[in-house]
Amino acid sequence: MKYPSEILERLVTSLSDLPGIGEKSAQRIALYLFRDGRQQGEQLAKVLHEMKDKVGQCSVCFNITEVDPCQYCSDTKRDQSIICVLEDTKDLLAIERTGEYHGMYHLLGGALSPLDGIGEEELHVKELIARITSNIKEVILATNPTIEGEMTASFLAQRLHGKEVKVTRIARGVPFGGTLEFNDMVTLSKSLEGRTLVD
Amino acid sequence: MKYPSEILERLVTSLSDLPGIGEKSAQRIALYLFRDGRQQGEQLAKVLHEMKDKVGQCSVCFNITEVDPCQYCSDTKRDQSIICVLEDTKDLLAIERTGEYHGMYHLLGGALSPLDGIGEEELHVKELIARITSNIKEVILATNPTIEGEMTASFLAQRLHGKEVKVTRIARGVPFGGTLEFNDMVTLSKSLEGRTLVD
Repeated sequence: MKYPSEILERLVTSLSDLPGIGEKSAQRIALYLFRDGRQQGEQLAKVLHEMKDKVGQCSVCFNITEVDPCQYCSDTKRDQSIICVLEDTKDLLAIERTGEYHGMYHLLGGALSPLDGIGEEELHVKELIARITSNIKEVILATNPTIEGEMTASFLAQRLHGKEVKVTRIARGVPFGGTLEFNDMVTLSKSLEGRTLVD
Repeated sequence: MKYPSEILERLVTSLSDLPGIGEKSAQRIALYLFRDGRQQGEQLAKVLHEMKDKVGQCSVCFNITEVDPCQYCSDTKRDQSIICVLEDTKDLLAIERTGEYHGMYHLLGGALSPLDGIGEEELHVKELIARITSNIKEVILATNPTIEGEMTASFLAQRLHGKEVKVTRIARGVPFGGTLEFNDMVTLSKSLEGRTLVD
């Protein structure tokens, strides 16, 4: 055994299973929880337990929620005629942080990735199609600007083709606050391609 | 509320309380636990729970343990006449990894740090002194080569002065595998100071 306690060993293993935590960090956190962080450990165990019992997915937009439909889907002040299509919750949180968007959401649960075996069936595509009724005026495809995200956006654009709805894609270009030289070729090309007229 | 679920929000807070985890990482881990990592979450909750109930400190060396005395203190194959004094468990794990040491341990629970209010009383100093009987031949002061660790080692050397025991300090010098130019001045001076005769 590598550690002086079997429980410590299992705690390190559990922690290093989490994304972005290597064995060194896991060990550091585990030892902290054993010594000074006992209370934090209890807190964490409690919230993990509650999560298991109480948190699920919204049946409309597939966001994480404790109530169904979720706070966004049940908010009558939001614009019901526009749906922003995203990969997952962290993208939703990013969009919400801007404070600029007040429409509805639809989370696919990821992006198409044939190599990882993620096809149309693995994502909430048919549920999106089912949501496109005559009340919906616009669908914003806001999947990530990655190969998988772009592919997913093109695929959805095709699937939505022929429906009486405006389909848009978020603008891709040089990010605010940087200089041109530090942008990669693809970003710069997309930025040129998507140039807009200056009034 | 920043997150679509109050439990998610509390999970992010709990995780970002851990050492080395910022809010971004906490969010990433929390969302992972909510989606793909539900089983890992349960596992983690379980082990945290067990930790609370079953893991304590060894009454001899103050290491983390599930049995008292711990595996090192109760191992009769280890050399009972030598005690290696360390700050805490991660140092013990580092020493054990070398596979070179087969004596006993004593964990102080930190190092002297007057600015943080950590004095002699906050560390397991008197328990160390009490362990120095006629059976003990050597005490290795292996506190960290930091200001606090060095101070603690000097302090312990003074306290052990006059006892019938050899007191040693781990060698400080240039670490193996690097070049001289990348070592700081203090390390280089210590390395010169501690130079040994080549046979």
